[in-house]
Amino acid sequence: MKPIRWKCVCAYDGTNFAGWQSQARGVAIQDVIEARLQTVLKQPVRISGSGRTDAGVHAHGQVFHFDAAWPHGEQKLLIALRTGLPPGIQIKSAKPARADFHARFQATGKRYEYNLHLGDADPFTRPYSWMIFRELDIKAMQAAARHLLGRHDFRAFTALNGPEMNDTTRTLRRLNVIKRGRRVRIVCEGDGFLYKMVRSLVGVLVTVGEGKLAAEAVGEILRSRQRTEAVQTAPACGLFLMKVFY
Amino acid sequence: MKPIRWKCVCAYDGTNFAGWQSQARGVAIQDVIEARLQTVLKQPVRISGSGRTDAGVHAHGQVFHFDAAWPHGEQKLLIALRTGLPPGIQIKSAKPARADFHARFQATGKRYEYNLHLGDADPFTRPYSWMIFRELDIKAMQAAARHLLGRHDFRAFTALNGPEMNDTTRTLRRLNVIKRGRRVRIVCEGDGFLYKMVRSLVGVLVTVGEGKLAAEAVGEILRSRQRTEAVQTAPACGLFLMKVFY
Repeated sequence: MKPIRWKCVCAYDGTNFAGWQSQARGVAIQDVIEARLQTVLKQPVRISGSGRTDAGVHAHGQVFHFDAAWPHGEQKLLIALRTGLPPGIQIKSAKPARADFHARFQATGKRYEYNLHLGDADPFTRPYSWMIFRELDIKAMQAAARHLLGRHDFRAFTALNGPEMNDTTRTLRRLNVIKRGRRVRIVCEGDGFLYKMVRSLVGVLVTVGEGKLAAEAVGEILRSRQRTEAVQTAPACGLFLMKVFY
Repeated sequence: MKPIRWKCVCAYDGTNFAGWQSQARGVAIQDVIEARLQTVLKQPVRISGSGRTDAGVHAHGQVFHFDAAWPHGEQKLLIALRTGLPPGIQIKSAKPARADFHARFQATGKRYEYNLHLGDADPFTRPYSWMIFRELDIKAMQAAARHLLGRHDFRAFTALNGPEMNDTTRTLRRLNVIKRGRRVRIVCEGDGFLYKMVRSLVGVLVTVGEGKLAAEAVGEILRSRQRTEAVQTAPACGLFLMKVFY
């Protein structure tokens, strides 16, 4: 039987993992899934994700692909994969894909969500939120977000210690700040994101919300293409990869 | 300064604790709170909870009391207690109470909620749900619940290995089965509960929902005052103590 390409969607609680991609230190989500695949398929399998998520970042809709000969149908593969994974990782779907499908190179966009919690969160919300112990000016954050929408060079909003990038231009299609009770959700959608870009966008929006930076100044930082101290990186625990578009 | 009585409300993720009350094995939630109080008050303090919760059971509104001389006001006590606790335990409020307030003996009722999830739950829901891999007949569960409401001897719904009880009569004021999407919430309120009673009620309702037991049979089991094999104990992880009434 010839191997075919499989496309999988997975969810994970990133709290206790060293991020998506295999690292020298700690257990990566990719390692755990590959180990399970090896058990199920009885041979080593490499998976390719749509992109990395950092240590501590969560996902509801990470996508990856791999090649395997599996004669028992997709439903049985899904059950076999799910059964042996730890509770923090779930395979949501496993489906045959076109032979040229590529989880990373064919992605046309991604949606992330970031959770802020105003004040001390309860033990069920805390591991998935950035707790902010002051009021935030939501209207100012929304105004700042409008300066970031569209096609721009986002060099000012990537990590200084990240990999060298040639092309730092991305299109931000959506950046919503939605308050409901003590919870503030930041929804961020675009054609692609630089290293730590979402957490940098969230960080600068919070700085604006705290009244430490004017909404218009965010546009100036963007145009400067230089990261400044006003751009803090929001903690990993509040970030969720929601969906990868193809 | 004379000690006064304090009433606290706390929330906890019971996943990694050996239940509320100090045990020979494992770390109990009570131990952790008492250790924090000792640090803050600079002397050993004993706390009294509204009742025990088993290992793995969660709480949004557990209540306890203790006596302490604390000259700095309730807000500062709350902050001092919160600061040093692990993320799985949160003190929601700390307020001076009447000298004769007793968290257990003065409780007039409790509300619990239990989460079922139909099918495989995602990593964020799974630690707080009982996953049920078949459809449930919700109407039959609701009919069975009606047989349990009111004042009854609930001896058939306590654990066989529990402490000897003289008085096993309790009043069940509310037992709702609410389905929303793949989630089924069971809300349970009464003047008091026997050892593992909520989990036994949930267990028998699920047996009815699976079609293995008729709704009317639940009334017969109740009247028999004898636990049978049809009364399974639902897993601890789905159970939340929501509120204690005074």
